Amino acid sequence: MQKRVGKVYLIGAGPGDPELLTLKAVRALALADVVLIDDLVDRTVLAHAPQARVVPVGKRGGCKSTPQAFIEKLMVRLARRGAVVARVKGGDPFVFGRGGEEVLALAAAGIECTVVPGITSGVGVPAALGIPVTHRDMARGVTFVTAHTRDGSGPDWAALARTGTTLVIYMGMQRIVEITAALVAAGIGSTPAAVIEHGTTAAERSVIGSVSTIALQAAAAGLGSPALIVVGDVVALARQAVPALPQQRSA
Amino acid sequence: MQKRVGKVYLIGAGPGDPELLTLKAVRALALADVVLIDDLVDRTVLAHAPQARVVPVGKRGGCKSTPQAFIEKLMVRLARRGAVVARVKGGDPFVFGRGGEEVLALAAAGIECTVVPGITSGVGVPAALGIPVTHRDMARGVTFVTAHTRDGSGPDWAALARTGTTLVIYMGMQRIVEITAALVAAGIGSTPAAVIEHGTTAAERSVIGSVSTIALQAAAAGLGSPALIVVGDVVALARQAVPALPQQRSA
Repeated sequence: MQKRVGKVYLIGAGPGDPELLTLKAVRALALADVVLIDDLVDRTVLAHAPQARVVPVGKRGGCKSTPQAFIEKLMVRLARRGAVVARVKGGDPFVFGRGGEEVLALAAAGIECTVVPGITSGVGVPAALGIPVTHRDMARGVTFVTAHTRDGSGPDWAALARTGTTLVIYMGMQRIVEITAALVAAGIGSTPAAVIEHGTTAAERSVIGSVSTIALQAAAAGLGSPALIVVGDVVALARQAVPALPQQRSA
Repeated sequence: MQKRVGKVYLIGAGPGDPELLTLKAVRALALADVVLIDDLVDRTVLAHAPQARVVPVGKRGGCKSTPQAFIEKLMVRLARRGAVVARVKGGDPFVFGRGGEEVLALAAAGIECTVVPGITSGVGVPAALGIPVTHRDMARGVTFVTAHTRDGSGPDWAALARTGTTLVIYMGMQRIVEITAALVAAGIGSTPAAVIEHGTTAAERSVIGSVSTIALQAAAAGLGSPALIVVGDVVALARQAVPALPQQRSA
């Protein structure tokens, strides 16, 4: 009797709006026996996998409710039993999604893994406010960074400021005062800045100001994680666009 | 008699693979009367808009076959006549896609515009080779830059090298020798680097080496535009992943 071989699809679900799922992600979900879904992913995406068992593996920034090692072991165990596993993450698996670590863990265990990219929040969330992360004559490009590193040291904010790229800071809310102070010290205190919480979802809230004012504005508005901090002249273009395509009601 | 009001959807089609289109893009295409499609977008996406008239508005890097101003005027004219226009671009409209300029031109003309984000090549193309653009302990983040600027000046490569982020260089093939020389001068000549042409498509080709060798390798392999240059320790993880989900045959 031939033993069925399992595999893992590592899927990026995009920034929040469930319609920003790709066709490839929908096809992978339809193949899944088990879906491991992160906290921040809208549950309506599960409609694409009605046949699957669902295991929530939330891990909000800071509080490690489901440790990474446990998730990796669970994927290996399920795939070895022959299951097709869809591991669904917010954003893109390879942009601060720890997808690289999961791919390596699966490869080490001899489990086949396919990565299905998703729209990273750093592009899709500013877009929902009409902010293009790059724009001729305003930004040489865009940099995605996190303040959240294993060794506790921070990025070289002065070098980042010198690049002339738009900066999109993921998981930065707990250190927003420290981050903006470093950027003010780097000479870009008057550069436009935004904080966007729950971007592209019905719960989206944001404040817009400058690098020197944005931490106070975000605190006054009560904004917290999950949120992005966006820094760059392009932020001045916010809301010149009409609001995004309204979300479709799930069936 | 009520006049029908047109509008424009500015749609990112992703890096190449037509299955990387989002559900929101598919819905917008189904609403379109006219599709303005860029050269580099796979024509199979037009299957989602069988009702629409198709206007190719190709504009390959360098040779401006359809000038930007013409495209903007065409969108305004069509929308004023009441058409729903789907403007389909490769990647994401706001990451070197000139989407910001188009949004401003449409806003100036009083035309409603909705931006539908796409997966930018800088994330999706390295992923197809198993390269995570960020990875703990290997990259502080990722920067997307272009060598192609209106004023002819280049980015500050030394500052970019100092950020410790993975660098993804769009539209860099015509200046690859100059770019890699600047990065060698910035002290990162031995950092792993890749050039990936036509990423995520059946025509995908790539070379992997280091910053100091990659220009010669790309020339030897005959790689040209459209291609991405990827620089960072994460490139060393290439191909540890199994190849991407095979493309589905179009119906």
